[in-house]
Amino acid sequence: MQMDTNPPSGTRDFLPDEVARRHQALETIREVFEAYGFSGMDTPAFERLETLLGKYGDEGDQLIFRILARGEKLEEALDGADAVTDSDLADHALRYDLTVPLARYVAANAGQLVTPFKRYAIAPVWRADRPGKGRYREFLQCDVDVTGSDSLLADAEVLLAINEVLDALGLTGFTMRLNSRKALRGLVEAYGIPTELEGTALVAIDKLDKIGVDGVAGELRDRDVPAAAVEQLVADLGADDLAGALRARIETTERGKEGLAEVDTVLDLTTPNLAGGEIAFDPVLARGLSYYTGPVFEVAHAGLGASIAGGGRYDDLVGMFSKQDIPATGGSLGIERILLLLAQEDSGASAPPVLVTVFGEDLRADALRIATHLRRDGAIHTDVYVADKKLGKQFKYADERGVRFVVIRGGNEVEAGTVTVKDMQTGDQVEIAEGILIDHLRGQL
Amino acid sequence: MQMDTNPPSGTRDFLPDEVARRHQALETIREVFEAYGFSGMDTPAFERLETLLGKYGDEGDQLIFRILARGEKLEEALDGADAVTDSDLADHALRYDLTVPLARYVAANAGQLVTPFKRYAIAPVWRADRPGKGRYREFLQCDVDVTGSDSLLADAEVLLAINEVLDALGLTGFTMRLNSRKALRGLVEAYGIPTELEGTALVAIDKLDKIGVDGVAGELRDRDVPAAAVEQLVADLGADDLAGALRARIETTERGKEGLAEVDTVLDLTTPNLAGGEIAFDPVLARGLSYYTGPVFEVAHAGLGASIAGGGRYDDLVGMFSKQDIPATGGSLGIERILLLLAQEDSGASAPPVLVTVFGEDLRADALRIATHLRRDGAIHTDVYVADKKLGKQFKYADERGVRFVVIRGGNEVEAGTVTVKDMQTGDQVEIAEGILIDHLRGQL
Repeated sequence: MQMDTNPPSGTRDFLPDEVARRHQALETIREVFEAYGFSGMDTPAFERLETLLGKYGDEGDQLIFRILARGEKLEEALDGADAVTDSDLADHALRYDLTVPLARYVAANAGQLVTPFKRYAIAPVWRADRPGKGRYREFLQCDVDVTGSDSLLADAEVLLAINEVLDALGLTGFTMRLNSRKALRGLVEAYGIPTELEGTALVAIDKLDKIGVDGVAGELRDRDVPAAAVEQLVADLGADDLAGALRARIETTERGKEGLAEVDTVLDLTTPNLAGGEIAFDPVLARGLSYYTGPVFEVAHAGLGASIAGGGRYDDLVGMFSKQDIPATGGSLGIERILLLLAQEDSGASAPPVLVTVFGEDLRADALRIATHLRRDGAIHTDVYVADKKLGKQFKYADERGVRFVVIRGGNEVEAGTVTVKDMQTGDQVEIAEGILIDHLRGQL
Repeated sequence: MQMDTNPPSGTRDFLPDEVARRHQALETIREVFEAYGFSGMDTPAFERLETLLGKYGDEGDQLIFRILARGEKLEEALDGADAVTDSDLADHALRYDLTVPLARYVAANAGQLVTPFKRYAIAPVWRADRPGKGRYREFLQCDVDVTGSDSLLADAEVLLAINEVLDALGLTGFTMRLNSRKALRGLVEAYGIPTELEGTALVAIDKLDKIGVDGVAGELRDRDVPAAAVEQLVADLGADDLAGALRARIETTERGKEGLAEVDTVLDLTTPNLAGGEIAFDPVLARGLSYYTGPVFEVAHAGLGASIAGGGRYDDLVGMFSKQDIPATGGSLGIERILLLLAQEDSGASAPPVLVTVFGEDLRADALRIATHLRRDGAIHTDVYVADKKLGKQFKYADERGVRFVVIRGGNEVEAGTVTVKDMQTGDQVEIAEGILIDHLRGQL
């Protein structure tokens, strides 16, 4: 039988070198998060459908992978006949991000958590997006969050941990852009944009980098923002000192003043402690998700059009799951994009350095014994050739896997109590006493 | 709003100490697999529905979590009206194990893989089982597999890697039980059990440990196995030397002889190289899954009724995805059960050893600076208290998290260029120059 053997559209199989490279990066991230006092906390891959619905906007709801109900539940839904909708047919859904599950968890365990609760999570999420270049339906998120603190110290801590991760991964040339949802509200108010257009106007303004001043102006007009507001805003967006010009406007409102003070405090707390990159106020940074309430940030990288990290304060999200409001702030690394940026120089990372060959069927046990010796007594990663093929095939295998040293033991060697070691890089071959094999290999590795 | 904030039935939230404990065990497993020359290879969380259906038997098919089709596909299925089935409504499904996705992958990439292909995978799988004590709908599997080799060396290598993992995790008192599907066919033939009853008879015989000889006899009769066969088998199952008695019968058939030779070869290759535990022939071990074709094994643990690992050769599975037959063998660790067996002594493993307190709002930047110094210059995992609360609350937090050293820096310390360090275990408190803080903490950790 022949069937489609590709991974499903928008997903990937990860080959050995890629797995090794990803694992190495994730361990670096984990180490930094733990160095910053964050602890791992994981939630299931799927949640009840109602836990996720209504948290990501209408567009987000459409992108949630739903899990088909089973047994009686499904039969009942189908019997419901004509008016059956996809929400009737599904009872669970794959998580869309790591933040909403965290909020559900914090709501459930508020009484027992040591507060402030600092957690990290590194796990896949799933979105039924149209797959495209660099856009996947299954991708990893790496999040840090602090719940139970309304202090800007928590926001600063999240920013510093993310900054340290980017530096530890070897990234340079990145800028952390900081704003506050309160400053954005001040901006909307200052330009006389009607409150009901706040959301749609901010989406347009947020695109300044991508579509330029004229593009923003066009979008604002399309969204029925009054001409006077657009005109004034366009003038300021074109100013040499954009941040200064907007700051002056924002400062004229109470809400805006409050937001600017938040931004300045976070800048004061983080700037002296950055491991790398820069941090700066960006008055047009909005961030898509609707649940942010205070400081928001994004990390831009010179080599990439898109952001490589982002986050912000979301003080109202936990309250969607319980009667109790619990403040929270966090950030997320766009690890898939970051992995693309990192130099792809670790090829062969997944190969063990040594292969023990098998000379013939009667020497299979002997080969396994030597491999076990190297692995257990030498702590040397050691492959053994596990098919019954001629030595030539075995050398070809060593070469293709990128193994450095090949150990050979035929009848002569067994008789003499020796092994032959071939260095695949230099082609050198030496016969040595079996008892010094570990020392010999250690000396070369 | 109030909603159910528990994780979905059959799934779990993992708290910090548990995450730390699991991560440590998984890294040990990964290290052993890599020491044995296996490389990581990962596949997506979901597959096309048709990739999974028909691989796990009818019961297995029922336990597959299906993902609801989206958009037009779903509408078409619902318009199909009366006869709509769950397979019409779903296009993808969560993976049920790690073996079938591997087979799909190997079929897709047969031409490019370095062969024999040795891979490991550590990843969650999902089954819509009725949740029960110790039985989850989301659980981890840790697999090693070799594809592209029909040599028993490959089977031995899998067994040795799994044996080494169990030892490296600190497990003792486990027994590896080995059999061959060919020996089982010989057994069925030797006792005159009709071929069409082979599968159902083996399921009954496999339960010997759990239901005893009489139980097996009853089940065999219920399954219409001829009385003569049941009588003879029951006599042998009650023998003092069960393995010897059954071996003598199995040896009377060609197929059985072949299977016993497989078992003996694998025993010869593995026994001298075991890191711990024992390995022995078990003539009634059948293993549930229908896809096994050669050696099969299970690992039993004295402290547990159920097996903690298992696997076997499955030479025909890859062929279900391509025209090409590719032999394969592998094993899987029951990591959830193993984690239960391991001593739960790592409590507090997730806490950083040091907390920097924040004396007051004007000293927030100073506290972050000291924390950054310890993290970056000292490589010391350091928490900083990120809410604006009094010192008493901060000490309570340190105590609850299990932090060992608390760093305090108030106005006096700032003036004197010192820090005060409190040892939460002894209660001792010392004031030292800021410049020696890292050395001081390192000396105590």
